[in-house]
Amino acid sequence: MSFTVTILGSGSAIPTAGRGLTAQFVVCRGRFILIDCGEGTQMQIRRFGIKFQRIEHVLISHLHGDHYFGLVGLLSSMHLMGRKRAIQIYGPKGLKEIVELQLNYDGARLAFELCFHETRPEGEQILFEDEKMSIHSFPLAHRVPTTGFLIREKAREYHLLVEAAQRDQVPIAFYHRLKKGEDIALEDGSVLPFKKYTRPAALPKTYAFCSDTAFREAIADYVKGADVLYHEATFTEQHKERAKTTMHSTAKQAAQLAQLAQVKRLVMGHLSARYDSGEGHEAEARKVFPSSEMAVDGLTFTV
Amino acid sequence: MSFTVTILGSGSAIPTAGRGLTAQFVVCRGRFILIDCGEGTQMQIRRFGIKFQRIEHVLISHLHGDHYFGLVGLLSSMHLMGRKRAIQIYGPKGLKEIVELQLNYDGARLAFELCFHETRPEGEQILFEDEKMSIHSFPLAHRVPTTGFLIREKAREYHLLVEAAQRDQVPIAFYHRLKKGEDIALEDGSVLPFKKYTRPAALPKTYAFCSDTAFREAIADYVKGADVLYHEATFTEQHKERAKTTMHSTAKQAAQLAQLAQVKRLVMGHLSARYDSGEGHEAEARKVFPSSEMAVDGLTFTV
Repeated sequence: MSFTVTILGSGSAIPTAGRGLTAQFVVCRGRFILIDCGEGTQMQIRRFGIKFQRIEHVLISHLHGDHYFGLVGLLSSMHLMGRKRAIQIYGPKGLKEIVELQLNYDGARLAFELCFHETRPEGEQILFEDEKMSIHSFPLAHRVPTTGFLIREKAREYHLLVEAAQRDQVPIAFYHRLKKGEDIALEDGSVLPFKKYTRPAALPKTYAFCSDTAFREAIADYVKGADVLYHEATFTEQHKERAKTTMHSTAKQAAQLAQLAQVKRLVMGHLSARYDSGEGHEAEARKVFPSSEMAVDGLTFTV
Repeated sequence: MSFTVTILGSGSAIPTAGRGLTAQFVVCRGRFILIDCGEGTQMQIRRFGIKFQRIEHVLISHLHGDHYFGLVGLLSSMHLMGRKRAIQIYGPKGLKEIVELQLNYDGARLAFELCFHETRPEGEQILFEDEKMSIHSFPLAHRVPTTGFLIREKAREYHLLVEAAQRDQVPIAFYHRLKKGEDIALEDGSVLPFKKYTRPAALPKTYAFCSDTAFREAIADYVKGADVLYHEATFTEQHKERAKTTMHSTAKQAAQLAQLAQVKRLVMGHLSARYDSGEGHEAEARKVFPSSEMAVDGLTFTV
């Protein structure tokens, strides 16, 4: 099953004609996740043909408006379109209060449950876990409590080599244990080694999301070895003082973090509206970390 | 000076590709007013080339999200773009609490003052008045406290007939009083009648805004004789039971109110996403009130 990310908004602070505010739609082994939800996210979801009733988990990194002002509108639309299924919402202290205050004045009761889970701005935290994947938060360095998120696949079962198993007349009842990587001891004392009847599945993948944050080496520990790192790069080095003051990153810093964390690929976003394009950011980042690119709205990539 | 309305969003509840959520930009004799501010209004403002720092007054009809979820994002963007000038915000109880809660978690202090004015859901109320115009609220009938708004020009000065005044050697010092409609008694006992030296200016115009509301005859008293009445027409008569349950209006009801109030022109809006176009609404309304039309996003009309 696939593991993909669609960029719904790659801009920062102020929406522009070309770039919406931060939001990403992640599909990971049959789970549907929305990361951040700036104003206009429901329009972007529709624009890019995503069925938004599928979203089960919403992760909000922090309470700056460009990362969550679209949430209550999205929830209202889900309700109006007939949603009955609960939704899990993870975010900082305050998010529940804000959403509930607005819904309260609205006077309508949503026909589905909002399950809020407060993220902690210190240390790593497992937000959700099932047999196929897990969602984690970890601290970023910004002006208000902010977390990044990791979405991690779990190891997949070994692939059964059916022909080999049939040739040796391995009972079908044992297939399940072999796929789990278990050697099977038979009553006659012989052993069916799982390695003889299976081959390894693809390695589990990890997606890491960091927005918004100043450059901190410590963040590399949390995102170490990720297959794709999304990291904000609001500025280029030309505006590094501005990046420092506002606790954002430059493209160079995003690339440095990617290098430090030994990730496979860097996708940058949260581009300041002062730049006409992300080309300068890409050039700057690639000097440090060649596999770097600036996101655009609507970009979908496989992790 | 002009008196125009630009429709920024003509849809209801759920934004669609073609119709944004309720918002209108009104220019009345040099005053700049935003009425309602659904999610995405700041994008629509930009799309239609309006300079949003000019907005001095924001009127919010009620606390259903499709009428105000865009407000806090708009205020944030105004701040980020350097606004220093105060803004006047008129709306129901709760609006101030909601906006301030969100700004409080944001951690940034806006560089301009938000002056909140609570609207009352009973009776007419003057919200703002200067020498050229006034803004009024009046009660509508909806599921939560809701007001409509009236924007009224004041009588303009008489136009001076300069040639006639010069011919009779009327001292320039008197021009101002003549333009105000004052007859001038001279020391010799004679009188300069203002009607001889002026002609009447255009009649002052009134714009009335009604969204959202069930049909109530009483509303006609508040909007009597308006030059343009904007009235919601979420449904057609085909869905009149739905209109009743949700306390919205049909196109026929909007037209009946226009007729009852003897307005000059009806512009409908707040079209439900279930309709592909507003043609059915127009046909239905025109049977009752010929000068009816359905708004589209970007429509600008002179009151």
